[in-house]
Order: sequence, then structure tokens, then C-alpha cells
Amino acid sequence: MLVTIDDIRRAADSVDGVVLRTPVVGSPVRPDLLIKAESLQPTGAFKVRGAVHAIASLSDEARAAGVVTHSSGNHGQALAWAARRAGIPCVVVMPEGSAPVKVEAVRRLGATVEMVPAARRAERAQQIAEERGLTIVPPYDHRHIIAGQGTVGLEIIADVPSPAAVLVPVGGGGLSSGVATAVRALSPATRVIGVEPELAADAAESLAAGRLVTWPVEQTGRTVADGLRTNLSDLTYAHLAARLDGIVTVTEAEILSTVGSLAREYRLVAEPSGAVAPAAWCHHAASLRERFGLGDGPVVAVVSGGNLDPALLATALQT
Amino acid sequence: MLVTIDDIRRAADSVDGVVLRTPVVGSPVRPDLLIKAESLQPTGAFKVRGAVHAIASLSDEARAAGVVTHSSGNHGQALAWAARRAGIPCVVVMPEGSAPVKVEAVRRLGATVEMVPAARRAERAQQIAEERGLTIVPPYDHRHIIAGQGTVGLEIIADVPSPAAVLVPVGGGGLSSGVATAVRALSPATRVIGVEPELAADAAESLAAGRLVTWPVEQTGRTVADGLRTNLSDLTYAHLAARLDGIVTVTEAEILSTVGSLAREYRLVAEPSGAVAPAAWCHHAASLRERFGLGDGPVVAVVSGGNLDPALLATALQT
Repeated sequence: MLVTIDDIRRAADSVDGVVLRTPVVGSPVRPDLLIKAESLQPTGAFKVRGAVHAIASLSDEARAAGVVTHSSGNHGQALAWAARRAGIPCVVVMPEGSAPVKVEAVRRLGATVEMVPAARRAERAQQIAEERGLTIVPPYDHRHIIAGQGTVGLEIIADVPSPAAVLVPVGGGGLSSGVATAVRALSPATRVIGVEPELAADAAESLAAGRLVTWPVEQTGRTVADGLRTNLSDLTYAHLAARLDGIVTVTEAEILSTVGSLAREYRLVAEPSGAVAPAAWCHHAASLRERFGLGDGPVVAVVSGGNLDPALLATALQT
Repeated sequence: MLVTIDDIRRAADSVDGVVLRTPVVGSPVRPDLLIKAESLQPTGAFKVRGAVHAIASLSDEARAAGVVTHSSGNHGQALAWAARRAGIPCVVVMPEGSAPVKVEAVRRLGATVEMVPAARRAERAQQIAEERGLTIVPPYDHRHIIAGQGTVGLEIIADVPSPAAVLVPVGGGGLSSGVATAVRALSPATRVIGVEPELAADAAESLAAGRLVTWPVEQTGRTVADGLRTNLSDLTYAHLAARLDGIVTVTEAEILSTVGSLAREYRLVAEPSGAVAPAAWCHHAASLRERFGLGDGPVVAVVSGGNLDPALLATALQT
């Protein structure tokens, strides 16, 4: 069963006053492109929304016992942050070889980190859950996570009542499933367009094929947008097939040049995964207007996160 | 007569739904420092608040005739933006030799630009006002401008009810006068601390001397914080003398390193003038807590703007 707008409204009750009500930011340079700046969330990414709602949805007993996940990126930080806010234990299983700065970030948020060989991550998280009675909170393959991320779409339509389109990045599909659900329910005339790196276009291929297609990590690992290397799950595929108006792709050069444009024109620091949705508009606005039959109004692109290597940002500023 | 909290509440009615309700942004790296991100305003600086309220406060007849100012920076863009929103004419007198990118930014916002020798700017704006029946809107030396900028303080206290301190940059004194007025009225226990570049510390010297002291432009022109090279007016001096708890200064190196910290830790692009207030906390938190008797709670620093040369940001990211 797919997530509904009522599920997302319940998630809004969980996240209100806990996560940041992020602004929709404009720029006189591009009056047709507005940015929903999820990069400003406390851990630098939208992921706190799903994590907060997943924890809020647990029974009192399960919540008190704590949560566990495996992640080398934004979801681990988000869950650690949400667990600390809730005052409950959190374990994050991370692959050996994770960047020390990422391990340190999770520890600083008060979570216990367990390092294991990459191939044993999921198994180890499962084992910890069973041994210690913790609940596994997955990064996207869960209805509460999708509903939590969907609050991004709820807020967009509250601030910009009927945009021509909402552009959203597609990785594992949690954010895009939630946003598509909210926007279709609240503004049926608005098109919801997914955006992927050309080098990790598994979701575009899946929608074209009419079934879930996965790409091996050797392929998706080529994109600089490291948050979008993940494949869809059955659950997120079902949401996107039913609720997205389409998926488009962008090149690596388009992604990096948009990291620069967002800093110069919108004063926002976006990671490459975060710049993918606006990149589609910055580089293909005319063809998107035609393909999706968009009116003249502005579109809103979700910038999903802002955690990147400062040296990469410095490079992007000069493109 | 000084601006009151009721003046600022009226200004809030003018700006609500017109300018951006900017977020207060946090970072797990520095839980004690929150940022009021005025850099996200449509023209990249808080100045739209005063400009919108000044135009809203005109008589219908004066408003229809239009507005004029002289500015080479953020105020000219802000007035042009506000005039276009109000659908009225706007002339911005700019000094010959202004950066073409700044002239183009004002023109893109629909204002008429007149270039004159720098020494004739004020005189020419006055002349245009008389010839064409336009109203001069000054950048800071005006009660409506101070009240408009004060809405920043109103929003800070709405979002963070009783911070230990609010740190605000001091240039001409419009923003700091308004913010000090709002914060003292709404949260009397909160300290309001002005921050200046050491190289443009005319306001700190004025408060210490107990009278308005001006520094020549050859001196203030040395700081990289180009928005803070201006001296106070009698009106803003009177506000700061009555309502600031003190003024501290920061070095050029501290300002630039904070531009880098804001990008890395808060995902915000700040211009040097915009980084001055958080720079005081990043580099002198312990001594500020002691000097101003601050409790343990977080402080809020205003990042006033985000318009800077991308090459300078790239450099700051590597410090």
C-alpha cells in the first residue's frame, strides 16, 4: 500500500518544531527557479525528517530501547541527531574505510559507531538489533521514512501554492516518493519530475522498462553525486511509477556547474547530490517546459543536502 | 526620538509575505552558535526589509511618483527590488567606476541607473528627487529604514525566545539600531553586542568616547568587509548608545576564516561583512561570555549578506 497524504500530515506533526522549516529561496538572476533549501537542516540534509518521524512512530517501549542503522553518509548522521533529540540510544554500523570526518560526525552526535567490513554491514545491523532489542531504521525503504521526507513537499506547496513543476533528486527514492505523494495530492496541476545523474540512471531505466531495474555499484559509483548511487526498492519503485510525471538525467559537468551557480546566485552550499535537481532546470529549462507542457510560472527544485568536500566547492566556484 | 518596538511591529506588517522569513540555522559542530541567515534574501542581504517598509510608508501620491537613492552596493539592489515589487519607478545613482556586475544587477531589477563621479552622488540624487518629484530613500539614516531592519530582531526572538546574546554587524548602524531595539524590548535579559572590523571601528570608538566619531574613508576602506566601511549618523549613534550592550572588533583574518566556517559548517555563503558577527563568536566566545556575563545558552549571530566575489569564497574555503 502506498503512503498517503494523511500519512505525510501525521509526519508533519512529528517534525514540526523539531527539524528546520526550510525556506524557499529565490534569486533575481533566475526568477523562474526557486530552491527548497534542505541543505540548511541541522545535519545538512533532508534525512532528519524521516529519521525523526520513524522514531516518533515507535511504541514507547521500542523507542526507549533505541535504534540502529547502517550508513556511511547523511542517514547515519540524521538518525544519530534524531535519537539524541529523542533521548534514546543509537548505533550506526559503518563500513571500514569510511572517511574519518564522517565517523567523527556521527560520534559527535552521540551515537555509538561500529566499524565492520562493508559486505557485513546489513547483517551486523540485523544482529545488533536482535541482540540488544533495537529497531532497525532503514534509509529509505520504509513507509515512515517516505512519509517523513514527504513533508518537504507539504511545505513547498504551503509556500508556493501552485508551481509549474517540482524537481526532486532520485537516489533510493525515499525523498522523491514522499514529495511526489504530497505534491500530487495538494496541487494536482503541478508536475513532479525526478532527476538523476546520467551515470546512476537506474530509476529512469526502471520507469522506462516498467519494472525495477538495478545497476551494479561499479556503475553508479562513477557519479560525483554520492548520495544518489543507491537503487530503488520495490516500495519506492511503486511510488515513483504511480506518482512521478517523469525522470530526466543530468551530466557530471552540469551537476558541478550547478554547485557553483547555487553558491553564486542563491548563496547556498549544495553537495553534488543536492545540486542534481536544479541542474536539470539550469541546463534544460526550455526542453522541460516543452516535454512536460509546463506553463510560465516558476518551478521549485529541492536541494537535498549541503555536505561536500570544501575543495570540491572551491573548484565548482570557478566553473 | 528613537524608533520603538511598535514602529518595528508596523514594519513587520509591511515586510510579511514580501521579503523572506529567513531561518535561524544551526550546526552540530557549534551547538552554541545559531545563524540568522539574511544572506538568503532575494537580493542577498537584509536591506530589502528597510526598503520595502520605507516604500510602504510613503503616501499613495509619493509612492506612485517613485524613489531614488545613491548606492554602489546592497542598498541600491534592495531599493530596486522593493520598487519593482511595488510597481513604482526607481532611480539608483551609482559612482563611475562601479563594478559592471553591480550596475548590471541593479538594471536587471528594473531600476534606472545614472552614473556620476563619486563625489557628486548625493548631490545628483537630491537633484533628481527635486526635478522628478521622487522620494529619496537613504540606506540607514532614517526611522523607517531602522524599523524595517529591526524586523530581523523580531524574528530572532520569535524563533529563539531567550538567547544569551544577539551579535549584529555595525556599518551605518541601521541594522544594529533596529535589532537592538527589537531584542531589548522583547527579551530584556538578552545582551545585544555589535561587531565591527578592527579596521573600521568608528562605532566602537564613538561609544567609548560618548559622542559620534567618524573615520575617513582611507581608513575604513582597508577592511575586506566593504559593507561596513560607512560611519554612523547622529540618528543611529543615538540608538546604539542607548540600546547596545557593547561593541567588539574582529580582525581581517578572523573575518575570512569565518566565511570558510559558515560554508563548511552551516552550508551558508556569507560575504565578509556578513561574517563579521559570527566571527566574534567563533574566535572570542569565552571572553565574550565573561565580559558580558552570558549564561550557558546559545547565541544568535546575524549573517547580514552573501554577495561576494566567488574567488574570495574559494580562497576562504581553504583557510
